[in-house]
Amino acid sequence: MTAYKEMSKAELEALKKTLEEKYEDVKGKGLKLDMSRGKPSATQLDLSMKMMDVLNSGTELKGEEGIDCRNYGTLDGIKEAKDLMAQMCEVPAENIIIYGNSSLNIMYDTVSRSMTHGVLGNTPWCKLDKVKFLCPAPGYDRHFKITEFFGIEMITIPMTPTGPDMDLVEKYVSEDPAVKGIWCVPKYSNPQGITYSEETVKRFANLKPAAPDFRIYWDNAYNVHHLYEDDQDFLLEILEECKKAGNEDMVYKFASTSKITFPGSGIAVLAASKRNIAEIKKQLSIQTIGHDKVNQFRHYHFFKNMDNMHKHMMKQADILRPKFEAVEEVLDRELTGLEIGSWIKPKGGYFISFEAMEGCAKAIVAKAKEAGLIMTDAGATFPYGVDPKDTNIRIAPSYPTPEELAVAADLFVICVKLVSIEKILASK
Amino acid sequence: MTAYKEMSKAELEALKKTLEEKYEDVKGKGLKLDMSRGKPSATQLDLSMKMMDVLNSGTELKGEEGIDCRNYGTLDGIKEAKDLMAQMCEVPAENIIIYGNSSLNIMYDTVSRSMTHGVLGNTPWCKLDKVKFLCPAPGYDRHFKITEFFGIEMITIPMTPTGPDMDLVEKYVSEDPAVKGIWCVPKYSNPQGITYSEETVKRFANLKPAAPDFRIYWDNAYNVHHLYEDDQDFLLEILEECKKAGNEDMVYKFASTSKITFPGSGIAVLAASKRNIAEIKKQLSIQTIGHDKVNQFRHYHFFKNMDNMHKHMMKQADILRPKFEAVEEVLDRELTGLEIGSWIKPKGGYFISFEAMEGCAKAIVAKAKEAGLIMTDAGATFPYGVDPKDTNIRIAPSYPTPEELAVAADLFVICVKLVSIEKILASK
Repeated sequence: MTAYKEMSKAELEALKKTLEEKYEDVKGKGLKLDMSRGKPSATQLDLSMKMMDVLNSGTELKGEEGIDCRNYGTLDGIKEAKDLMAQMCEVPAENIIIYGNSSLNIMYDTVSRSMTHGVLGNTPWCKLDKVKFLCPAPGYDRHFKITEFFGIEMITIPMTPTGPDMDLVEKYVSEDPAVKGIWCVPKYSNPQGITYSEETVKRFANLKPAAPDFRIYWDNAYNVHHLYEDDQDFLLEILEECKKAGNEDMVYKFASTSKITFPGSGIAVLAASKRNIAEIKKQLSIQTIGHDKVNQFRHYHFFKNMDNMHKHMMKQADILRPKFEAVEEVLDRELTGLEIGSWIKPKGGYFISFEAMEGCAKAIVAKAKEAGLIMTDAGATFPYGVDPKDTNIRIAPSYPTPEELAVAADLFVICVKLVSIEKILASK
Repeated sequence: MTAYKEMSKAELEALKKTLEEKYEDVKGKGLKLDMSRGKPSATQLDLSMKMMDVLNSGTELKGEEGIDCRNYGTLDGIKEAKDLMAQMCEVPAENIIIYGNSSLNIMYDTVSRSMTHGVLGNTPWCKLDKVKFLCPAPGYDRHFKITEFFGIEMITIPMTPTGPDMDLVEKYVSEDPAVKGIWCVPKYSNPQGITYSEETVKRFANLKPAAPDFRIYWDNAYNVHHLYEDDQDFLLEILEECKKAGNEDMVYKFASTSKITFPGSGIAVLAASKRNIAEIKKQLSIQTIGHDKVNQFRHYHFFKNMDNMHKHMMKQADILRPKFEAVEEVLDRELTGLEIGSWIKPKGGYFISFEAMEGCAKAIVAKAKEAGLIMTDAGATFPYGVDPKDTNIRIAPSYPTPEELAVAADLFVICVKLVSIEKILASK
């Protein structure tokens, strides 16, 4: 294939005409497809329906430690669920608290508590003139929304194939005491699908923060969310690494079963050092009497152990993999060699990240929308919703059917080509 | 019966000796009873076990509006659950948000959001020098813990048989702009079982706050928690009253099914004006993607309508009523005429409130504890855990069996008598 920028104006004009016809053709079909969010499909959710058989009116809802799961109490979760979730988080059970249904909610509450009460005896952030967070980008829009909501200044850190640019991270963290946190999705990152390298994790664990209340917000959302049985990324466990480095209080880990069982009806978990956990439990005891132990019981008895959870996740992978590959196949076939975009083929997670030519992402997303394909807003993957180069587009292939995806991917590449040609023509 | 204070020193000494023998006798039995918290008994929880049959792997978990309850989204709750909960809260469905499992958590979050972001455009409380809450007392200890945790100054408002002392409430609210809220349990109040009179509710609705961001925290925890089918208290609906008074933004209502189905696995709800709801939903959309819709679906299909919920609550009443009456019977029989304590017989709720002689509550609770009966800490029903007259004791009869309650009540009255005699003797 010839790169577009090598083509003549006339060639591009002709190509544009053909593409516009194709575009109008697709548009005429009245599509209504949503590829905006990392939402599991109904088929994936069906995999967990047997969890609804775990409990019936004859079940004795007693936890291993004799706790009546129906009643009040047990702030940090029932033992068997803690044991299971601790394994999922690769930390000892004493380092975790089981919350409600949403890890996002835990992250919000963690920032909120730091604002009003500070972190381990340090000044509450709301009493400080300036609080800053580092935001590796492209990243997860909902992370950035939380820090924006609390008026925290966000500093964009570029992503590299091995994780955030650690030279920059180290510089900011060690030099600026206003830097209180960094958002990370360390495995199969949102949206690029990048897993932080061992070196990156070790550099994180060995940070020397200027602020004693600096924390790494380690949102390990996709820890067991592989696409391939035999080709998986490995992420070094950070709490242990921090401990080795004498930094065990420096990290909060977050996870949930939202994309394992049911989004909205899963269980979420926080993992941290014993000192952090003790402080957080003190606050939590004011906020609630306890979370949903019946759902903890239900989840534990559905999985029983990590082996079953991994098997379950391979069934999820069998549903997701063809969708990712369908999109990748179209991108490969239609865009290779044109030099109008690049993409990463992730081994897990929920997204494909597409890098368009500079200044084209917004226009591509708008063009797709006009023809009935909703994608994540361009810019959303950056702090304040502004992608400085306007290049990143997050593709979320999980929700549509494979047939819909084929149509969607075809439409997407038409939009990429059209917008790119217009861009190139404008500069010729 | 002769009042103790009319008895001679010798008579009291003799009585004391007999009571001490009885006390030692009970103490020797090695009791271990907990009457400290308003915790439903296992028998009550059994009433909701059929809710575990609502869902199985064959259920189509589609909400009325076509929403897949298993997936992300629907921030304020599925329609049918909102309709049901709105009826329970006696407000239109557009005025409610369904949350997770805990109304305490909603209250905490409401205070926390006011601290960090303010209320409807007003200055965030964390930026103010002083924030105060009015605390009708005796009241709910967990309310007071929230305001204490946020460094909010608490002002005790005495309770009367018709609710808080409204002269004082009106004075503080209209004169002091630092007064931002008041904690209320308006029906079958915790711990006294008092229901606010119509006049009280109307005076609340017609408050003229000095602070534009003053809010009534209306924790209607026991709205449907009657003890008698034919003798129930009636509480005027406050949101409607506030609306009539042109004050519709002034109240937040809280409720949950914690003491209807399962504590810890119920659904909780916030009701407020449309303007408040809109503001809160904006914040909530940053905090979470949505709450547990499967549990909303489960609750809706278990009850279907308020009629069934009321029938269900009458079954709860059938279990609770004999327990309340067992305690009341012992108090009546053993303490009437002695002038060493008074109590209210509530028509609903979870507590019996006992007023001991001044300076005796702590000693009574300690004495009961020594013999194996755990009661709510004396003082807990007041701000900062300090009951200025040391008179109030909260009795929670819901959890023990009727047999245990008989023993517990007997022990309790022995402790009341002994401590009172010591008090009277000391002043003779």
